[in-house]
Amino acid sequence: MKQEQVLTVDNMNQRLRRMRYAVRGPVLERALHIEHELEKGVPKPFASVVRANIGDCHALGQKPITFIRQVLAGAACPQLLASPALPQDVRQRVEAILDDCTCRSVGAYSPSAGLWSVRCAAAEWLAARDGAPASAHDIYLGSGATDLIKALLTMFLEDVNGKPSGVMIPIPQYPLFSGALAELGLKQVDYYLDEERGWALDVAELRRALCDASATCRVRALVVINPGNPTGQVLTRENMEEVVRFAHEHRLFLLADEVYQENIIAKPFHSFKKVMYEMGAPYCDMELGSVLTCSKGWAAECGLRAGLLELVRVQPDVVTAYRTARALMQCPTVLGQAALLCVMKPPEPGDASYEQFAAERRDIRRVLRERAATAHRAFNSIPGYSCNAIDGSMFAFPRFEIPERAQRAAHALSIAPDEFYCLRLLEETGVCVVPGSGFGQRPGTYHFRTTILHPRHQLQHMMDSVRRFHANFLHQYSDTTHTDTGC
Amino acid sequence: MKQEQVLTVDNMNQRLRRMRYAVRGPVLERALHIEHELEKGVPKPFASVVRANIGDCHALGQKPITFIRQVLAGAACPQLLASPALPQDVRQRVEAILDDCTCRSVGAYSPSAGLWSVRCAAAEWLAARDGAPASAHDIYLGSGATDLIKALLTMFLEDVNGKPSGVMIPIPQYPLFSGALAELGLKQVDYYLDEERGWALDVAELRRALCDASATCRVRALVVINPGNPTGQVLTRENMEEVVRFAHEHRLFLLADEVYQENIIAKPFHSFKKVMYEMGAPYCDMELGSVLTCSKGWAAECGLRAGLLELVRVQPDVVTAYRTARALMQCPTVLGQAALLCVMKPPEPGDASYEQFAAERRDIRRVLRERAATAHRAFNSIPGYSCNAIDGSMFAFPRFEIPERAQRAAHALSIAPDEFYCLRLLEETGVCVVPGSGFGQRPGTYHFRTTILHPRHQLQHMMDSVRRFHANFLHQYSDTTHTDTGC
Repeated sequence: MKQEQVLTVDNMNQRLRRMRYAVRGPVLERALHIEHELEKGVPKPFASVVRANIGDCHALGQKPITFIRQVLAGAACPQLLASPALPQDVRQRVEAILDDCTCRSVGAYSPSAGLWSVRCAAAEWLAARDGAPASAHDIYLGSGATDLIKALLTMFLEDVNGKPSGVMIPIPQYPLFSGALAELGLKQVDYYLDEERGWALDVAELRRALCDASATCRVRALVVINPGNPTGQVLTRENMEEVVRFAHEHRLFLLADEVYQENIIAKPFHSFKKVMYEMGAPYCDMELGSVLTCSKGWAAECGLRAGLLELVRVQPDVVTAYRTARALMQCPTVLGQAALLCVMKPPEPGDASYEQFAAERRDIRRVLRERAATAHRAFNSIPGYSCNAIDGSMFAFPRFEIPERAQRAAHALSIAPDEFYCLRLLEETGVCVVPGSGFGQRPGTYHFRTTILHPRHQLQHMMDSVRRFHANFLHQYSDTTHTDTGC
Repeated sequence: MKQEQVLTVDNMNQRLRRMRYAVRGPVLERALHIEHELEKGVPKPFASVVRANIGDCHALGQKPITFIRQVLAGAACPQLLASPALPQDVRQRVEAILDDCTCRSVGAYSPSAGLWSVRCAAAEWLAARDGAPASAHDIYLGSGATDLIKALLTMFLEDVNGKPSGVMIPIPQYPLFSGALAELGLKQVDYYLDEERGWALDVAELRRALCDASATCRVRALVVINPGNPTGQVLTRENMEEVVRFAHEHRLFLLADEVYQENIIAKPFHSFKKVMYEMGAPYCDMELGSVLTCSKGWAAECGLRAGLLELVRVQPDVVTAYRTARALMQCPTVLGQAALLCVMKPPEPGDASYEQFAAERRDIRRVLRERAATAHRAFNSIPGYSCNAIDGSMFAFPRFEIPERAQRAAHALSIAPDEFYCLRLLEETGVCVVPGSGFGQRPGTYHFRTTILHPRHQLQHMMDSVRRFHANFLHQYSDTTHTDTGC
């Protein structure tokens, strides 16, 4: 007789059972399956899957920054430093990194918070960005921003007077937040961004959400994603000041996900740190956590897993507990830290690598601007679609109509209408995007998130595919063309 | 007026407040402080701190395996593949890795479970190790074994019939386990290893621990660390069979921390997978999680952060939930995965890199055997010290006596007697080891864990320092030399 399972879906951690992460969810699973089918020669109405589900620039063909990769190669294998293929400033940078590694090996553990030299470079970068003081002691490196955000959210897990802790997150949001809150058992408190006003963050809506949630939980932290993911808006300075005042008034810890701050298309980016600093007391004395990553920005080194948390004005005993929890995980990858150093301290005019670096970075920025304009224009030209301006990030989050018959067809399959739509889009065109329901959206509205950094011809092909698909879809599920027989 | 803190040590997650991780705990903190003092010229009775707190071979001077580092360099910077410095088999390996990376960049995200090619190589390696089938589908890569163990423990967090879940761990244990259980809110159920019998794992003691714990929790999983950390014993096959039968009888999920399986000095290592397979039904149908890492073994690439979990015969819906939780974290570092591939599929006779690789690996194994013998002999030659044989791992965990007066002095400072001892050892000799209380030990016994892979002269210096220190310490705190005035 087969051994009965010890760990079952019924006796496992039920929080994990409820977790969802749409970015790598059912639509991607199906896309991977279709890719296998294509390899096996199964006929499809398209030649290949176009993955547009994840913000991964290198996977879309963006070339790595040469300087970063040369530094990584030299740090991994110092015997190559003798090679004339590595410029002088690369060699110097490698030496600086190895000097900060125990016994000059990237294979030795670093301190849990990261190499001191990287934390110092980050502090200099942040100070220059904000015109405000920054300390290396406040900087914690991690295996990507995800790792750091989850660790910070963990700090808020404490029932106060029998009420669970709650964390406010925007809707739409990046589903790391909903997923991590679900895993940790923190209450998710939604505030809606205003799509009609370019995904604006309305303080009246913050107030509404806080008030509604207060019956069931104690709201302790406020997450702001700026530039927005999946929404791509960049907050104005005035808006940020309102948010800071709100957080202060209600004693909320501000957690700023600012990972797309270097992916700016229109509008200037301001960090919350800078805004709070310039607002003066009492706002400049507030606690703040802000994350950055080398997975985004011009480096876009997702696979290296390196992120940074600046944690300011937090109570020293709280910091000690945070540090212990981090120490348990040993340290972030040292080669990832080396890449982060390159981002925080890129080549400067006069350095041997500068011209090439500057040209590569310029090209990456140009491509982002071009693609954002293309995507925005194309989506708004599809009948039934609308798409807000993309100020920053690397996504579009267009809205579209789904006929009632299609909604009923989705419900019959027990999936969300926009998931139904995205799965149909995938089956018919090979385009793989993420349903808006995975990020959250106003009830009755439908969106998807798509990356926009594909090569020009591929982006155009995607847009044409969506346009044709949508026309067919509307035709197929039009309420007037057929009598509904279902449900 | 200064802003009142929002997040305080009283309203933060109290589980984190209770967490301890002695490996990077107070003794190391003090050691780092002393290092700064030495740099500033503060006089000390020693010239430098000898860090022996963490199992980090590269930090102790072990040279990285050239093949691994050349592969990393080529994968990071493929333009270097043209260099004659990189042998043919390195180039081939790099091509294989890049072929499995989206758009041939290690900067693209990999699948959450890891690159397929690495998972396949791991399955082949495991199958060859055990003479038992292994599937790439059962293999999950992570940012070090730590990451994977914590993720797996998270699965057991569910109160059943109002009783919290408990997990059995050995005492002494590696404090990742106690720390992760504390963070997650799982009940730690201690079973003691038998120091008098070479840290044997006694099934009667497992039974005692399970029985005692049953009143307050539902024990769901059994952790075995083999080779032992900090204890360095290697379980016999017979002993492992008893453990498997116990787990089966009590329906416990077996979690095998086997990260030191390649750090073998005496006695053969058997994996739990192999033992269960060979025991046949019903044992070969039991669930099992086993971890490996490239931080240990001959690679010892701690800083790269790459580990592997083999998760067998787990219910598919449970696996789905596990995969979703992992997907949220995106993926482990791709360069770390590349290093793991080199470990799972090292150069073979006839490959261009083979001779150098084999010589490097041989040297690493020789050093481990030599140092283990030196440490074992030296500790047992110190009056008041005893140390079991070191079968595997890279640690010694000697036991020593602490006079009652010293115990009282420690209590007066509210620290454990062995922490007091280790802090004194650090202050007087510069030797930084981890108190046994950080791993757990039988009440009234005292130990510390020390790494043993230091260069020969440094290990000898450490041993001499401990010998002199212990004699002085006994003299200073001898119950007969002074009348106790304290408390």
